[in-house]
Amino acid sequence: MAEITSYKYRIEPQDVDFTLRASASSIINYMLNVAGTDADNKGFGVASLQDNKYTWVLSRLGVEIYRQAEQYSNIVIDTWVNEFNRLSSTRNFRMRQDDEVLAAGVSQWCVLDMESRQVVDLSIMKERHDEVMVDAPSPISAPARLRPAEHTASSEYTVAYSDIDFNRHMNTLRYVDMIFDAISLDVIENNCGMRIDFNFIAEARYGERLTIAHSHEGNTWLFEISSSEKTLCRAKVEFK
Amino acid sequence: MAEITSYKYRIEPQDVDFTLRASASSIINYMLNVAGTDADNKGFGVASLQDNKYTWVLSRLGVEIYRQAEQYSNIVIDTWVNEFNRLSSTRNFRMRQDDEVLAAGVSQWCVLDMESRQVVDLSIMKERHDEVMVDAPSPISAPARLRPAEHTASSEYTVAYSDIDFNRHMNTLRYVDMIFDAISLDVIENNCGMRIDFNFIAEARYGERLTIAHSHEGNTWLFEISSSEKTLCRAKVEFK
Repeated sequence: MAEITSYKYRIEPQDVDFTLRASASSIINYMLNVAGTDADNKGFGVASLQDNKYTWVLSRLGVEIYRQAEQYSNIVIDTWVNEFNRLSSTRNFRMRQDDEVLAAGVSQWCVLDMESRQVVDLSIMKERHDEVMVDAPSPISAPARLRPAEHTASSEYTVAYSDIDFNRHMNTLRYVDMIFDAISLDVIENNCGMRIDFNFIAEARYGERLTIAHSHEGNTWLFEISSSEKTLCRAKVEFK
Repeated sequence: MAEITSYKYRIEPQDVDFTLRASASSIINYMLNVAGTDADNKGFGVASLQDNKYTWVLSRLGVEIYRQAEQYSNIVIDTWVNEFNRLSSTRNFRMRQDDEVLAAGVSQWCVLDMESRQVVDLSIMKERHDEVMVDAPSPISAPARLRPAEHTASSEYTVAYSDIDFNRHMNTLRYVDMIFDAISLDVIENNCGMRIDFNFIAEARYGERLTIAHSHEGNTWLFEISSSEKTLCRAKVEFK
């Protein structure tokens, strides 16, 4: 059994939104960076998988934000893996400023064979995984499974150079930007905390035309991002 | 007279493009962050100006990129102010990896009265400025003055939440993203260095519909970003 590992960061100008507080997108960015760094440090990151033409893929993410850290705040992100089965690995996050928990997250990952585009049975790395498992519960409930919904509004966007990662797929964080760009500015400005759930279904490729559909009822906002062919991502944001 | 001041950074995953090298946008981001931090450290940053309802505004920027640093590289940014007159202050940048110069920049700033929206005579801060001036030349030629041009292609974009800063104006870096999003992916992938010139003329506000017009001849790309009312920004990129 392993221990919870912590990483230190500072909230930089590019991390804050117009309220000068860390945006949801940058909070998720810190969590995903820590996921990559921690997996690499413990010998089961993308670098170790690439040799085998495999890659980690984020399938679901749940994040609760209690307080958005201000610009130049020093923060700590704790991370630990606490569940592992043939299909997915669960990594947890807690963002803190000293002892105050600012945000928490639960992410579910699978391994994809980049040639066959099929999900790989994680049993192949059970031994390595057993060594890094931490005996601590997830800080929040698991990411919700989001079903198709009727949407009342939509916009379109073409995936561009500044959106893509080394696979020439749209970066996960751009989905976060897209959904928050559809929410009213005063809701974002005056929020008292939120819960975000993401289901990542397929990847958006460079040049692809996307439709970002959404609807909302009270404090709950639902999103579906799709290409001409299929649904790529569903998301839900519930403001407190 | 003062000395050149240096700041250390690491190229993070969010800084790299699909080639896993720092994008032009992130290189400029590091330069602008250093400008803000260094001005604050030396007592003439935005924080000191805000009391007087004044703010620093970037009017022109010239950047030459020789090599785009790779992900997780440790870099240093040197910065110094070496020119100052009633209308503008010139701040220089050199991005290094050990002794290799990766990029260089020259930025010209003016001070804006946020109430009257007029440029302020910088004589009011001459004494403070004199103390921070460094006796070293700019590393590259001053930013070019860009004139109106005929453009052959254009796209449209509406300024959204993820684009705006605390003034609810579009962040400077989004202009950089926009122009590079219009350039062919293979030009960006296979470039052997570039020179970028920016003229910032007016600010883009939240919700405003922008037109990004461009044309190119050989290795030179010209851009003009405008709202329905006026030209906001012109830019030129010359690839080597």
